[in-house]
Amino acid sequence: MSYYLSLPVTDDIALVQPTLNMSEAIFSLLDSDRQHLGTFLDFVDLTNKVEDETAYLKMKLTGVANGTDYLFLIHYKGQLAGTIDLHFIDTKNQKAEIGYWIHSSFTNLGITTLAVHKVCEFGFNHLDLNKLTIVADTENQPSNKVAIKSGFTLVSTEKEDVFIHGAFRDMNRYSLLKSNFKAKK
Amino acid sequence: MSYYLSLPVTDDIALVQPTLNMSEAIFSLLDSDRQHLGTFLDFVDLTNKVEDETAYLKMKLTGVANGTDYLFLIHYKGQLAGTIDLHFIDTKNQKAEIGYWIHSSFTNLGITTLAVHKVCEFGFNHLDLNKLTIVADTENQPSNKVAIKSGFTLVSTEKEDVFIHGAFRDMNRYSLLKSNFKAKK
Amino acid sequence: MSYYLSLPVTDDIALVQPTLNMSEAIFSLLDSDRQHLGTFLDFVDLTNKVEDETAYLKMKLTGVANGTDYLFLIHYKGQLAGTIDLHFIDTKNQKAEIGYWIHSSFTNLGITTLAVHKVCEFGFNHLDLNKLTIVADTENQPSNKVAIKSGFTLVSTEKEDVFIHGAFRDMNRYSLLKSNFKAKK
Amino acid sequence: MSYYLSLPVTDDIALVQPTLNMSEAIFSLLDSDRQHLGTFLDFVDLTNKVEDETAYLKMKLTGVANGTDYLFLIHYKGQLAGTIDLHFIDTKNQKAEIGYWIHSSFTNLGITTLAVHKVCEFGFNHLDLNKLTIVADTENQPSNKVAIKSGFTLVSTEKEDVFIHGAFRDMNRYSLLKSNFKAKK
Amino acid sequence: MSYYLSLPVTDDIALVQPTLNMSEAIFSLLDSDRQHLGTFLDFVDLTNKVEDETAYLKMKLTGVANGTDYLFLIHYKGQLAGTIDLHFIDTKNQKAEIGYWIHSSFTNLGITTLAVHKVCEFGFNHLDLNKLTIVADTENQPSNKVAIKSGFTLVSTEKEDVFIHGAFRDMNRYSLLKSNFKAKK
Amino acid sequence: MSYYLSLPVTDDIALVQPTLNMSEAIFSLLDSDRQHLGTFLDFVDLTNKVEDETAYLKMKLTGVANGTDYLFLIHYKGQLAGTIDLHFIDTKNQKAEIGYWIHSSFTNLGITTLAVHKVCEFGFNHLDLNKLTIVADTENQPSNKVAIKSGFTLVSTEKEDVFIHGAFRDMNRYSLLKSNFKAKK
Repeated sequence: MSYYLSLPVTDDIALVQPTLNMSEAIFSLLDSDRQHLGTFLDFVDLTNKVEDETAYLKMKLTGVANGTDYLFLIHYKGQLAGTIDLHFIDTKNQKAEIGYWIHSSFTNLGITTLAVHKVCEFGFNHLDLNKLTIVADTENQPSNKVAIKSGFTLVSTEKEDVFIHGAFRDMNRYSLLKSNFKAKK
Repeated sequence: MSYYLSLPVTDDIALVQPTLNMSEAIFSLLDSDRQHLGTFLDFVDLTNKVEDETAYLKMKLTGVANGTDYLFLIHYKGQLAGTIDLHFIDTKNQKAEIGYWIHSSFTNLGITTLAVHKVCEFGFNHLDLNKLTIVADTENQPSNKVAIKSGFTLVSTEKEDVFIHGAFRDMNRYSLLKSNFKAKK
Repeated sequence: MSYYLSLPVTDDIALVQPTLNMSEAIFSLLDSDRQHLGTFLDFVDLTNKVEDETAYLKMKLTGVANGTDYLFLIHYKGQLAGTIDLHFIDTKNQKAEIGYWIHSSFTNLGITTLAVHKVCEFGFNHLDLNKLTIVADTENQPSNKVAIKSGFTLVSTEKEDVFIHGAFRDMNRYSLLKSNFKAKK
Repeated sequence: MSYYLSLPVTDDIALVQPTLNMSEAIFSLLDSDRQHLGTFLDFVDLTNKVEDETAYLKMKLTGVANGTDYLFLIHYKGQLAGTIDLHFIDTKNQKAEIGYWIHSSFTNLGITTLAVHKVCEFGFNHLDLNKLTIVADTENQPSNKVAIKSGFTLVSTEKEDVFIHGAFRDMNRYSLLKSNFKAKK
Repeated sequence: MSYYLSLPVTDDIALVQPTLNMSEAIFSLLDSDRQHLGTFLDFVDLTNKVEDETAYLKMKLTGVANGTDYLFLIHYKGQLAGTIDLHFIDTKNQKAEIGYWIHSSFTNLGITTLAVHKVCEFGFNHLDLNKLTIVADTENQPSNKVAIKSGFTLVSTEKEDVFIHGAFRDMNRYSLLKSNFKAKK
Repeated sequence: MSYYLSLPVTDDIALVQPTLNMSEAIFSLLDSDRQHLGTFLDFVDLTNKVEDETAYLKMKLTGVANGTDYLFLIHYKGQLAGTIDLHFIDTKNQKAEIGYWIHSSFTNLGITTLAVHKVCEFGFNHLDLNKLTIVADTENQPSNKVAIKSGFTLVSTEKEDVFIHGAFRDMNRYSLLKSNFKAKK
């Protein structure tokens, strides 16, 4: 039985509220999949011990207190599979950016797409946002697929937008307006 | 349909994760029941406008980021009925104090006792605490009943412990150890 | 004779380092052109007294100390005409965004385009940035012209990106890479 | 001759105002009596070099500036013998907790009991507090004796209240009301 | 009987450690002597209500925690007569500046000179300072006399050094080295 | 060609606005002249790696944001030769102190005197200060000459004012009033 605060996505998938004492579990998951996750996500190289993850959780939870962030853990059949978050929450302009990662052992199950859809509901209906954005490395095929399957529209390809592993990478920017999200349902 | 992160207590009762944009709803609930709530709870007199409640939420959410607080909203049949929280969370000594209030229109339904029981589960099993404490004004009969019905033991009556409405009030201190909580189930 | 630290653009135009005691002059300029400037720039409505401008200058100068901002005054023939800045300076990814405004009595003189070009030089050659971005309201023709004349490329039109005067506005995003800036000279 | 600010207790005993440059003396005293002091006091294991003591003094003096703490050194015949403090000072509810430790070479002289009595005078008459509390490990006989000899009443035994040296310890809570303190004199 | 921490100067005079709850008494004293004190002391015009004095005390007590300040109240026959402090305490260069004010009803009794002498002892012997400085408006005869009678040497007259009541004032700077202070005794 | 914000002093000399990414250049200059600079300047011994210089720049730029500091680099024929700054800027009393150092390979060219004169113009005319002060070790002949040649008047010799390399040093204090600076031109 679970004692987490959570938002059910399907019978198998839930978005879970993280607490500080979960940093070890998150770190272990990430640490066991460095090569897969680190290819396109720059924070992986900066997370080298549990304390780094604890500091990250503190930063994100402080963002919740300031209204700029909202981090969820993705649970699949009761197991921690990845994280998904809203960041750059801008209440004045009613927009935010969605970020996510999932461990390689949980890919190809459609988990992330369903999680993104639930976070869109949370952002549009509960936080009253008007627009959500996803940014994905142009070569990160799974991440681009998630954006497209979640109903986001490609807005631009940002050239040389992120510097990672010694090179500039191009990023695709996708966005979804509340009006389009509603129409689709 | 709900988009809140929550921890179900029964089919009707849930503990819900608050976000900053809920401060207006919490303030309205509290503001409509000042006389009842203000008799024994000193924060009521300090909460006079929505901004006070927003500041309180920010303070509590900052406490989550620091690992010292955990605030839940109590929902009954989808309606906001009150709040319950863990404060003074002390990870070194593995203990915390539980506080709660419920609107007068939701009393006598056993909601608070069930909520306390769930928060005990959350504290003992998820946060790995060893002891929980409840402090109740000696004349606040409903609050004392909740403590007793939740399995807490009266530890002491603290004389002249809180100064409210111009007078010192005596407070009952109850506590519950994890070992006793487990034995009871 | 001038005692300001400045970066000459042409014989008539200079970028000048602001100090706190200039807030009154900046406020007066902005205050005398509210209708023109406020149409597309949301900070105008938030700047209602000299103290607001002083607070803004402090924030920007603190950004200089943190390496995230660089604000210049635009002087034309020794007179304050507007401001131009680098913000969101991201040293890891070597990019930043350029913002600018100019008083209506100084428009149509090509001042802003020349100022943008000089800030590009400053950003690419002195701060070693790799990419610069300009964001302009799709209906703000002068601002779009400045971006295009300065050699920036339209990357996207961001739908409903800014909420101003009670409505969402679409924004054009332009960018310029260091490699393209150099090739052009 | 002494240049300290102090509050005389008897001809031999004085409460002395600490300054930052006394941290070395306090550390040496504590460091020379680790086994005795560390049995029941958890801060001893956390104080391993002069800088730890300086940081502690800074924290306590900041507490004085905020009105939450008041730390005194205990001098016996001009020698540093221990410390005594008021912490958790709560001006709204007019209460505080007293803590103390004394070097083993100064025990059995009644010093601490006299110091506690003087701190009670200071708290009740100068800081206008209404209630003072002492918390002592149930097996720390000297500390319990001090509380009782100082006229405090046992209010409760708090089970498993402090985690030290790998085990939970029970704590006795004593309290003294201003009305009882005055009646006794 | 007094419960203050104090440093006796003579049978009648004592330096007393201030606490936050003394701000009302200090404000009343200062407020009853505005014309006399405000002529040469610029902080008088900035202290218009008890809260200003409380904020000042907090600032000074924070200075104690940081090792940069030390404020004493001057008591004469048990009555608050004024204040004296060490500020700009510079432990690297072992120097500080002394400031003082006394209510007009306590002047011509030699109180301040004796208080300065005691603060010199405190600074040289307890805080291990090497040099103390006094700065006095050239027209503030009592203050200049105190400096001279306390054995300080005039070092310079600083032209237009302080701006008060709409005009620049010249200030005399006096200093006293530890070596000279000791020789004199 | 240069992209720095600067204030020209002569055809060869300019005061340049520092940015954080210049810390390496400043550190290298200082590091290559430790013996010469460290004799009289205490910060030299505290600057042992580029990060120390970066921290110093951050502190000074934060001072700009607070209105208490203004740091310039001294460029000679396009090369970094030293720094000059206004510190202790006191807008209430309209005064500040000037500090400077120049690498030994750039001495005897009159650079510092011209830089001081320009900083006086900046301080008196742009920042509206009324008095500027220079403090120089009595044995630091070049620094004393700069003060005198710049029109400053010796106000005092401060005995044992700075503790450096294990000994107290006497310091000459020079000052210049705006009225005298203007009269001289």
